[in-house]
Amino acid sequence: MTERLYIFDTTLRDGQQTQGVQFSTPEKTKIAEVLDRLGVDYIEGGWPGANPTDSEFFDSRPQTRATFTAFGMTKRAGRSAENDDVLAGVLNAGTPAVCLVGKTHDFHVTKALGIGLDENLGNIAQSVAHLVAQGREALFDAEHFFDGYKANPDYALKCLHAAFEAGARWIVLCDTNGGTLPAEIGAITRAVIDSGIPGGHLGIHTHDDTGNAVANTLAAVDAGARQVQGTLNGLGERCGNANLTTLIPTLLLKEPYASTFEIGVSHDALAGLTRASRMLDDILNRVPLKSLPYVGSSAFAHKAGLHASAILKDPSTYEHVDPSVVGNSRIVPMSNQAGQSNLRRRLSEAGLEVAPGDPALARILDTVKEREAQGYSYDTAQASFELVAREELGQKPDFFEVKRYKVTVERRKNKYNKMVSLSEAVIVVKIGDEKLLSVSESMDEQGGDRGPVNALSKALAKDLGPYQDYIEDLRLVDFKVRITDGGTEAVTRVIIDSEDGQGRRWSTVGVSANIIDAAFDALLDAITWKLIRDGAKPVSKVVPLQGADIR
Amino acid sequence: MTERLYIFDTTLRDGQQTQGVQFSTPEKTKIAEVLDRLGVDYIEGGWPGANPTDSEFFDSRPQTRATFTAFGMTKRAGRSAENDDVLAGVLNAGTPAVCLVGKTHDFHVTKALGIGLDENLGNIAQSVAHLVAQGREALFDAEHFFDGYKANPDYALKCLHAAFEAGARWIVLCDTNGGTLPAEIGAITRAVIDSGIPGGHLGIHTHDDTGNAVANTLAAVDAGARQVQGTLNGLGERCGNANLTTLIPTLLLKEPYASTFEIGVSHDALAGLTRASRMLDDILNRVPLKSLPYVGSSAFAHKAGLHASAILKDPSTYEHVDPSVVGNSRIVPMSNQAGQSNLRRRLSEAGLEVAPGDPALARILDTVKEREAQGYSYDTAQASFELVAREELGQKPDFFEVKRYKVTVERRKNKYNKMVSLSEAVIVVKIGDEKLLSVSESMDEQGGDRGPVNALSKALAKDLGPYQDYIEDLRLVDFKVRITDGGTEAVTRVIIDSEDGQGRRWSTVGVSANIIDAAFDALLDAITWKLIRDGAKPVSKVVPLQGADIR
Repeated sequence: MTERLYIFDTTLRDGQQTQGVQFSTPEKTKIAEVLDRLGVDYIEGGWPGANPTDSEFFDSRPQTRATFTAFGMTKRAGRSAENDDVLAGVLNAGTPAVCLVGKTHDFHVTKALGIGLDENLGNIAQSVAHLVAQGREALFDAEHFFDGYKANPDYALKCLHAAFEAGARWIVLCDTNGGTLPAEIGAITRAVIDSGIPGGHLGIHTHDDTGNAVANTLAAVDAGARQVQGTLNGLGERCGNANLTTLIPTLLLKEPYASTFEIGVSHDALAGLTRASRMLDDILNRVPLKSLPYVGSSAFAHKAGLHASAILKDPSTYEHVDPSVVGNSRIVPMSNQAGQSNLRRRLSEAGLEVAPGDPALARILDTVKEREAQGYSYDTAQASFELVAREELGQKPDFFEVKRYKVTVERRKNKYNKMVSLSEAVIVVKIGDEKLLSVSESMDEQGGDRGPVNALSKALAKDLGPYQDYIEDLRLVDFKVRITDGGTEAVTRVIIDSEDGQGRRWSTVGVSANIIDAAFDALLDAITWKLIRDGAKPVSKVVPLQGADIR
Repeated sequence: MTERLYIFDTTLRDGQQTQGVQFSTPEKTKIAEVLDRLGVDYIEGGWPGANPTDSEFFDSRPQTRATFTAFGMTKRAGRSAENDDVLAGVLNAGTPAVCLVGKTHDFHVTKALGIGLDENLGNIAQSVAHLVAQGREALFDAEHFFDGYKANPDYALKCLHAAFEAGARWIVLCDTNGGTLPAEIGAITRAVIDSGIPGGHLGIHTHDDTGNAVANTLAAVDAGARQVQGTLNGLGERCGNANLTTLIPTLLLKEPYASTFEIGVSHDALAGLTRASRMLDDILNRVPLKSLPYVGSSAFAHKAGLHASAILKDPSTYEHVDPSVVGNSRIVPMSNQAGQSNLRRRLSEAGLEVAPGDPALARILDTVKEREAQGYSYDTAQASFELVAREELGQKPDFFEVKRYKVTVERRKNKYNKMVSLSEAVIVVKIGDEKLLSVSESMDEQGGDRGPVNALSKALAKDLGPYQDYIEDLRLVDFKVRITDGGTEAVTRVIIDSEDGQGRRWSTVGVSANIIDAAFDALLDAITWKLIRDGAKPVSKVVPLQGADIR
């Protein structure tokens, strides 16, 4: 017999308190769809009336399978619940559920609200009763509950009971300041249940200020709480809320939770979790955090040589769950700690089958090691790694040769006496026996300069003769630069991410003391990789007579 | 009576398993210094013999106050500990402590090692005994211990006892795959103690694959373990190790730990924790994670309006610890009173005293906000921040004006038929009424090209007329480049570190879609800051007649 455990998502409310995050109404709508597809039980949409975006979002009357919830606060002192305009604004959103936050820590009642302790109890009870009278499912967010309980347990419990007895479906225990540790959360949650509020009516809302948001949530569930609150990717005020992309797979896959509870998220939906996480980052234009449990791109990356070779024998040796169940995938990156088995796996993923013990393997490892000592890094630049391997295996076609290039960046005043800059690149390429010259300047639609790497990339892609069709859809999407140790002195490492019309995305690396040179090397790799992938055939060269080669 | 709790740092070993992280030897040296200043008890430096960097680092014989530790593995089957060359490589590093990893999960012994269970016990015992015979402090990393215990508790415990009875000072319980949850960690750690190994000899090594690395560590400490392992910023294989920048403040500041334990990190050193965390990110050129507990830039950022106003009355209303104890600072919405007092403190650090309520404060905050929206970042670029403030305060002298510049990068074959590149910069500067033209190419002693930024910096510093004496000793020591969000589109942010003969080091920032432009802006700031610091007097300009200005 399993017991129902409910998931309450507050990405659109507490998640909006993340520094630098400001959702628009269409973004809120899109995120609500992602959450609904995932199968959470409650979606808290924001605080109707608190700001124009939240009001507009609620005015659009979002239709969700999950119980759509409006957030607000208990009525203010000195007026009835019916006559509180802030509370009325929340109710007017017409949501099936309403969650009201109220004080439960005596210090906050007297210090922040400046009212009497009994008056606060009355505010809680009357506000909740008002929700219930309006036919809404009522949730009470017990603000600062754990700190309040440690300061004055009797009063903190009285606040909970005031809400519960007024008809609240859920009493949510909030660790508002995020400073409570797991053992305390467990003990205090048990004390609440002992006081007479059943665990089936208790929710838990934690913050990550000690890195324990997830553990605190589990501690409350272990103690009996049956609603867990959190956000996608752990968004939220300060260090964030409990991360649902971490909690959901743990609850669904790991014991004792998997066989104790039934949750609204199916195993099918779980396979969309990584995608849901990345979609949120896309919407927010945030770089996905690689180290995120379950859904991060490094979560199943095996770098240590010993781990990588064992993974080949049996993935369970170094993986606590199968990456595919959360829609993620395994990565065995190259590094100077990798062994030959790691290498063979990597090559096989690139479609290069090499027999164990093939002497080319040792040569590839040596080259990789040597180039890493010069400042290259192949952890992320998988496409460049593949080209290094192909070179050693004699499987890298000679598509074209760059004879020379020249890049100019100029900054001067324009005719309106405004400082402007302009970049220009000239490039000379030889394909077979044909010499091709291209020139390009870097200018976006607004006439702004996009810089020398952009100019060079455009010039290179402008005319590659017989290969032109293959690279028409190639797009430079990101480049990262860092100064690194190149053996005897500092060099610049450039990593370029490229994309094509088929949705492929690949990374290449270039290293040089000169940043333009380094970027150029990475660009060349990006094009070569694309030509190989698309099956382009190298143009054969007429071997020139000695001395007849015109440069 | 407090009990000693030991902190073991593995940033330089397990932290090196982070995807995308590849330390150089000088970086390892720098990080070891940061760790030593912090006061950790053990610094694990890597695996001598496993790769050239680690070998070079150990060859440099780092001197640390902490017990410097080499990592390796137990001897292989079929040879004695004395005759195992891998083990010999580890011992040859000559460190006072050595940590050897060995198998404790029966499945791994038979599957990954392919040896008998008793043979593995012998390998553990003989390897540890060999360390002890050589006079080293021996640590045994019990790989996959928790999974092993769940599969075969008797055998897993036998492995620990083999190491302990052979003289290991510490038995480190490793949750290698990171899938164990806090309650299990606590129960199994207690079972180990019950089996006869005292908690004072037990360490805990966790990974964050379920978001519980910190909680798992605390659960083991609660159960009796007295050594905690982790890394700065939670670096480490896959999702990372337990984050010491989270654990250390929790152990030092929060109950029951604060009054139970004595640790090597002092409260003074704790105030350098945020700086240590940012330094590591700087070394790795990683964007600091804002939401990191205690040390993240958002950890004490109060965005919710209700929180911000209560914080003004009493910070403890919404903060679980005082940010200053970890060297962090509070962030409240820029517009209010607290935002201004923060700003005044920062200005005063730069020698600029501004009275409370001065309208320039609001102007500075607005400008900073606006420029940050364009992609600037003043967290590390203090010198550029000072210049923004000086501009608003009317205290930024007009030393010179750049009329135009032109940078060329060319790559072609030289007379030996070798591809070489050359960068050249021309710059035109106006000082007072004088126009100065400088040209410089970028070439090091070996005739190698150092790139366009170097050429530009040399041209700019070549002839600054009356200011030349002030900038003779200016040196560009580092530059970092990042693509960042500039509002409507991606821009390039360049941060330049400069140094002078007086040992001063300062950072400046430039932002543009064009990387050369961005670098140039940062260079200009670097020179202007230096001229101000050295008290250079601006050359007065003769106001030209209308139309007489020659460009």
